This record gives sequence, structure tokens and C-alpha cells, in this order.
Amino acid sequence: MALVEREDRAAIATLTLNDPGKLNALSDAMLAELSETLSALEEDTETRVVILRGAGRAFCAGHDLREMQAVRQAPDGGAAAWGDLFTRCSAVMQQIVRLPQPVIAQVHGVAAAAGCQLVATCDMAVAADDCRFGVNGVNIGLFCSTPMVALSRVMPRKQVFEMLTTGRLIDADRATELGLINRAVPAPGLDGAARELAETVSAKLGRAVRVGKRAFYEQSEMTLADAYAHTGTVMAMNMAFDETKEGIAAFLDKRDPNWTQ
Amino acid sequence: MALVEREDRAAIATLTLNDPGKLNALSDAMLAELSETLSALEEDTETRVVILRGAGRAFCAGHDLREMQAVRQAPDGGAAAWGDLFTRCSAVMQQIVRLPQPVIAQVHGVAAAAGCQLVATCDMAVAADDCRFGVNGVNIGLFCSTPMVALSRVMPRKQVFEMLTTGRLIDADRATELGLINRAVPAPGLDGAARELAETVSAKLGRAVRVGKRAFYEQSEMTLADAYAHTGTVMAMNMAFDETKEGIAAFLDKRDPNWTQ
Amino acid sequence: MALVEREDRAAIATLTLNDPGKLNALSDAMLAELSETLSALEEDTETRVVILRGAGRAFCAGHDLREMQAVRQAPDGGAAAWGDLFTRCSAVMQQIVRLPQPVIAQVHGVAAAAGCQLVATCDMAVAADDCRFGVNGVNIGLFCSTPMVALSRVMPRKQVFEMLTTGRLIDADRATELGLINRAVPAPGLDGAARELAETVSAKLGRAVRVGKRAFYEQSEMTLADAYAHTGTVMAMNMAFDETKEGIAAFLDKRDPNWTQ
Repeated sequence: MALVEREDRAAIATLTLNDPGKLNALSDAMLAELSETLSALEEDTETRVVILRGAGRAFCAGHDLREMQAVRQAPDGGAAAWGDLFTRCSAVMQQIVRLPQPVIAQVHGVAAAAGCQLVATCDMAVAADDCRFGVNGVNIGLFCSTPMVALSRVMPRKQVFEMLTTGRLIDADRATELGLINRAVPAPGLDGAARELAETVSAKLGRAVRVGKRAFYEQSEMTLADAYAHTGTVMAMNMAFDETKEGIAAFLDKRDPNWTQ
Repeated sequence: MALVEREDRAAIATLTLNDPGKLNALSDAMLAELSETLSALEEDTETRVVILRGAGRAFCAGHDLREMQAVRQAPDGGAAAWGDLFTRCSAVMQQIVRLPQPVIAQVHGVAAAAGCQLVATCDMAVAADDCRFGVNGVNIGLFCSTPMVALSRVMPRKQVFEMLTTGRLIDADRATELGLINRAVPAPGLDGAARELAETVSAKLGRAVRVGKRAFYEQSEMTLADAYAHTGTVMAMNMAFDETKEGIAAFLDKRDPNWTQ
Repeated sequence: MALVEREDRAAIATLTLNDPGKLNALSDAMLAELSETLSALEEDTETRVVILRGAGRAFCAGHDLREMQAVRQAPDGGAAAWGDLFTRCSAVMQQIVRLPQPVIAQVHGVAAAAGCQLVATCDMAVAADDCRFGVNGVNIGLFCSTPMVALSRVMPRKQVFEMLTTGRLIDADRATELGLINRAVPAPGLDGAARELAETVSAKLGRAVRVGKRAFYEQSEMTLADAYAHTGTVMAMNMAFDETKEGIAAFLDKRDPNWTQ
């Protein structure tokens, strides 16, 4: 059985982390399958939105600690294996950022450590209102240093620092206030809420969303002047799309656009 | 009649976007007048605060889509014209950032696309509580790539991404929570609230506010060490102002400063 | 009597700014003692958390204006003295950021100007619910340009700009909403709340918290790719700690770690 299940419906791909016995830990095998699945999506122009969810009791509880502990037997004590692990894990996170399609985290149960990093990394996140979030590696003596890269780019600084150094979990309402997720809904409505958001985005012009998502993250690392120079070029390119010509014409004519994307 | 009306009262200049039939769209003519008006203010040492508002039903609905559509008739299909448009529009936004005086957006009705960008760009914003905000270009196939430069620098990332990809409008309370505006007030009190904020700021020492605003945006693009080195120099320069000498003396003497600015 | 009192209890050092007659102003002498105290902590591997508080009615009211005014008598009108003052003050702020131990501001009464900067600079902050916060130098003609470096890195931009240009104070609830502090508690519970947070953090593995805090601020000034490359290396190093081996083993065995740190 696949560790990452993919289901496609109406231009939306739902990826399910499927190792519930390990709370969907990001094991070597899970990271490899997730990376492969994301690589396939990079080339997939039919898919306009991705939903990422977890099977079983939790979204994702972080790394696979047994695997990480086992490599201490290596001649170098594990150093090379850990370096490689964090490189592979960080590469998967950056694959999500670079993926042409928006990725929505659909979060339930618990999102902890690298699992919370996944939530922070996805472009948007919807959670069950009884879900909890934490970067709690500090509790076992392993500071969540890579997860904080993602969290500190979506949440205010002092609140991330508290989560990192206390190891405490926050609830979904607090996660909403802090910007870690877009909204929380009662658990029975979670599937529907994630689907509704995905369908709303997938109804937009896919080409426009793709260039927009890429530019969003590119400009975030630029000075104001460079960001404007870059995004101005992107918008001029976007204007030249035939579908955008039709979209504007439809708006001016007060009718729906005739898009066959 | 001018597309940008300027009214001066007691060191506060109120600029009114005045093309209500087009919901104050940022047409070529509007951008030109706005740029010219801002250029005049750059040299105007009498004016200490600027209020930017819109005439009619809305603050500003974004670009002039008819104009943008018309240039498709050009030999290059519009490419040069669009490139030029976004360059000019981005230049106006950056003129606001570089303007010596603080600029307060006074927002009512709707602020959409480049109109929402204007709100995000102004140093502060006060809105009517029934006002709505959106970067909804995606609805017509034109991702709001330049507006997101301004929004992503004042609001948390996931919430900007949702606005950009769903095209949905948010209300004034949500805009306050997210940091897009400073506060919302009942519509009948909007003029008074913007005026009160402007008067509070205009009562401060104009020279100090000018050097402070400039340093605020400069340091925002620096490392912590560089930011401290730069702002330390700015504060030492500020201390040398005669009016600052008087301001501190007055404070120590428990009296009002005798400023004739 | 010392201007900065240090009390050590159970791996937590409490530093008390102790010049209540001046509302703990950051005078030359106070900055010198604070810097010296922090330098001693840099080398102190016994101390795992620092609490910073103020004696008397207020946390800290900012710079010592009488001292700053007095140097106007110098041949250069004070320029060299002010340049030196802001360099020293900014160095102390950056010492807090670079200090290996997390620093918790325990704030009561008022935190104004450079006092508010101290709060923003500390890694975390807990305040009495009747405490007020402001960067109000503009009221005396001295824009809080160095304080804004710290505030603009923990709070949203428009809200910092308003505080800087209006000089108005905000209350503790608003400071919590804006991210300036982690939480507010009734004044009688302030000591206990700061202590509880400090004890929670000091119970974690000190070595892990140290490498984590350093990496937290380092990665905050990097691009996403560089931040991941750097923190991946940090986590691999953290994995190699003997105590982390024990922490993970204890977790997998469902027991408490046997740490003798």
C-alpha cells in the first residue's frame, strides 16, 4: 500500500499521508514517496489545486524517531545520515513552495514538529477545531530548527519562539489568530471546508494562479523596488494570456468568462 | 475637473481621487495626476500629513480595465503598454512610501485590486466599518501580482495568499485583525476619524516625523546590525535639531514645547 | 547599590533594572552595567533562562533625557556623545539577541521608547494587564528610530507606524494582539507567570535551546533556501548530542529523560 495516496477529482489532487500506525511520520520512505508525488504534480497541467491530508488519528507527528535513532550505529555516529535526512526533508518542503499548484493543508488531530512545519509550508491551511499544533522537539532535546524556518515566515516572532522553547501545543483558534492556519471548522465539516476552498481556487484561471504563486514567493525575498520590477513584468505577461483577454472582456460585458482550461 | 483634488487645511493635505463614475480607477490620467500631486508634496515643507480618499461610492476599484484592454490593438499586442503601465503604477506606490509626509488612507465602500494595494501602501489606514477589501484580479484571470507586494509586507502570508487565489473580499473587522488597516469606524465617523489621526500626527515635530518615516522603510530592508547602525545615526542627527532641544527641555520642565514649525 | 541586580535561582537568572527614581532609564551607567551583566551570562553555562524586570513603578521609561541634554555643552554640540550613546544602546539590544539563553521580559507599569524596545528585543515577554507600551519619543521631537528596529521585527507594520507617529501608548491586551508580548496577566500574578514560563524553558535541554536560539535569529535574515541549508546542519549537530540520544530513547521508552545538565 502506498505511503502517499493520490486521488484526483475535478482538477483537484488530494494527497493522503498514509502511515497511520506511525501518525504519518516523515520516514525516509514517506519523504521519498511525497517527493515523487510532488514531482509528478509539477508536470501535471490538469491539476489546479492540491490538498494534503493525513490518514488516521493525526495529520503528521513529525520525523520518524526510531529511524533517526537507528543510524547512530553507523561508523560516523549518524552524522551523514542526519545531514542527508534534513536535506531531503527541507527539499520536500521547498518542493511544496515551488509547486505550480496551490497546496492546502487539511489538518486534524495533531500537527507536531515537522508535521507542523508541513502546515506552515503549505500555501493555505484549514483545520479541525479540535486540532493541536506544536514544534515540540525541544521536549526530547531536539530543537525544531528546520520547522522554525517555515513557522517564522507565517507567524509573529515572539509567538514562534515560545512554541519552540516551551514545546507546548496551541489549539486551532490560537493557530488562526497567529496566522498559522487560515481557519478552523468543526471536525465533521473539515473535508467539506478544504474541498470548498480547493474548488474556489480551482475555478480560477490555472495559468494565472501558477504565475501568481511563483511570483508570490519570489517577491517575498526581494527589496520593495526589485519586487515591484519583477511583479510588474509578471503582470504584463499575465495580461497577454488569451484567457485573460477573455476574462476581462467577460467582466466588462457582465457575463461569465468562457474558459476552456 | 481634476482627477485628483487637493485641499489643504492646517498643514494637512487631503487628496481625493475624483473619478467616481469609474470607481476612481487608476487610469493613465489618474496615475499621472496622482504622481504629479505627490511630486508637489515632496517639496512642500508646509504640509505635515496627507490623507488619501476617494469620491463617490468607493475608495478605488483598481486599474482601468477598458484602457488595458484597448492597447491589445497595438502591433505588439499591448506588451509595451502594459509594461509601462505597471512601471508607472509601481512608481506611484513607491512615491507614497518615499513621500516625506505620512499618508493616511481614508477608505470607504470598496478597495479592490490596485485600490487595495493603495491601502496597503499608505503608512496608515482608517476605514468605514462597512468597507470591503480584496485583491480579486484572479476572478478575471489577472493575478494581483503587483498588489501582493504591498499586502505581503503588512499582513501575514497565508491570509494574503487566500485573498489572492480566492479573489474574495474581506470586511473591515477582518482587515483590522490582519493588519491591513489600523482601525474601522462607523461610516458617518470616517472623515472625523481620519482627520483626528492626521491632526495628532501633524501636531508632532514635522522634521522628526520626516526623518523617522524615511528611516522606517530604509531599515525594514536591512539586517538587524545594519538597521541599528543606520537608525543610530538618524537619531543622533535628530537630537541635533533645535526643536528637539526645545522639546526635551519642555518635557523636563513639564511644559509644552515652543515649536514654530 | 547596583543599577542592575542579578539574582540566581535554579538555573534562572533574574536581572532587575534598579533605578526606580528615574523609572529605570537607560543612562550611561545603566547601559554599562546591563552590558557587563549580559557579558557575564554569555559565559555562564549554568544559567539556562534570563528574566529581565524593573524595580519600582515601571519597567523602563527609555533613555536618560537629562544626560542626553547635558552633552549639548560639548564643543561639537553633542554629536559624538549621541552617536556613541546609540551605538552602545544598540549593542546592548543585540547582546540580548545573541545571548545563548532565552530572555523573558517581565513588564509592568510602563515600557516606553527604548524601554519598549527592550520588550520587543527580548525573546519573549509577559506583562501585567495594566501595563502600557509606547514609542513616544515623537512627542518631544525625537522619533524612536532605533526602537522601531526591534518593534518592526515583531509586530505588523502599519500598527508600528501608528505608535511611532502618534506617540500613543497601547494597553497590554492590544500588545498581545499585535505580537509585542506573549501574554498579559493580572498584576499580582506577574512574578509567577514569568517564573512559570522561565521554569518551563529551563526544564528543557539547555544545549538544544542554545543552538536553537542562535539559529532562530540567524535564519531570520536568510533566504528560504539558505535558511533550510543552515538549520539542517544545526539539527544534524543537535542530533549528535548525547543528551538528545537519551531524550529520544526516553520518549520511545515512554519515560522521562535522564538528563544531568
